[in-house]
Amino acid sequence: MNESTLTMTGALDPRGGWEARRCPIAKSLEVVGTRSAFLLLREAFYGTTRFDDFAHRAGLSDAVTAARLRELAEAGLLDRRPYQEHGQRTRFEYRLTEMGVDLFPALAALFAWGDRWLAPAGVEMRHHACGAPVRTELRCDDGHPVQVGAIDLAVR
Amino acid sequence: MNESTLTMTGALDPRGGWEARRCPIAKSLEVVGTRSAFLLLREAFYGTTRFDDFAHRAGLSDAVTAARLRELAEAGLLDRRPYQEHGQRTRFEYRLTEMGVDLFPALAALFAWGDRWLAPAGVEMRHHACGAPVRTELRCDDGHPVQVGAIDLAVR
Repeated sequence: MNESTLTMTGALDPRGGWEARRCPIAKSLEVVGTRSAFLLLREAFYGTTRFDDFAHRAGLSDAVTAARLRELAEAGLLDRRPYQEHGQRTRFEYRLTEMGVDLFPALAALFAWGDRWLAPAGVEMRHHACGAPVRTELRCDDGHPVQVGAIDLAVR
Repeated sequence: MNESTLTMTGALDPRGGWEARRCPIAKSLEVVGTRSAFLLLREAFYGTTRFDDFAHRAGLSDAVTAARLRELAEAGLLDRRPYQEHGQRTRFEYRLTEMGVDLFPALAALFAWGDRWLAPAGVEMRHHACGAPVRTELRCDDGHPVQVGAIDLAVR
């Protein structure tokens, strides 16, 4: 057993039997495979809803922000809704859908990894109810914590 | 409490007090912020070690594969080692370092999300020891499963 890789089993062994294009990681990256998409989703999780805030806080140009928000809305991760402040023209705000919210573990994992390996953030995620730090964990349905080397990739 | 966003607390409230550039997600994306980087790391977790296999299985050009593998090695996620087969010139193989292996939860989260929301993969990750499906979970150090809306972002 190699500690740093998955083990391909059944029809996936040898590895050539696994068509990498069917991999759901590749599918996910077709939707969120850019730095700007991740940064805008991060902002949505931080509570940003308005275009100008997204662009400013993510440090992206208006053009990139507009293109990415539109793509994320079309893909179903953000809900785009009109709003109007008194005397102003109609604008749009963006909120995470259930599909968008469900991507949070990926961002939390990038948060933890960057904090550990690149630069300590000086901030941390804590469980509101008890105050304990929050981690992204791999765990099986029987409740065991699982490391990469203990995972089999298998035909369902 | 909003169910789809983090809550900024202490010095981070109001949200403008938080400099988004200090966010470790942004730091992580400076290293792995491209679709091709994620696909090559995925291949490394699937057991790929050689240049031609990386390019072929990730569906990337030789130029992109070479640039990304070099960047990932320079950033410390892959270890680049020479090897030589009888009568052939020296080549290099790439293996995940501890830093690289530690990014696996992010890829596992993208795997689960793509499988759920985009296209069922027909494959799943299972715990080798007990056969149960493996999930990416957010959990606090006191052992509670945690949802996004129950997370505070706080100065450490």
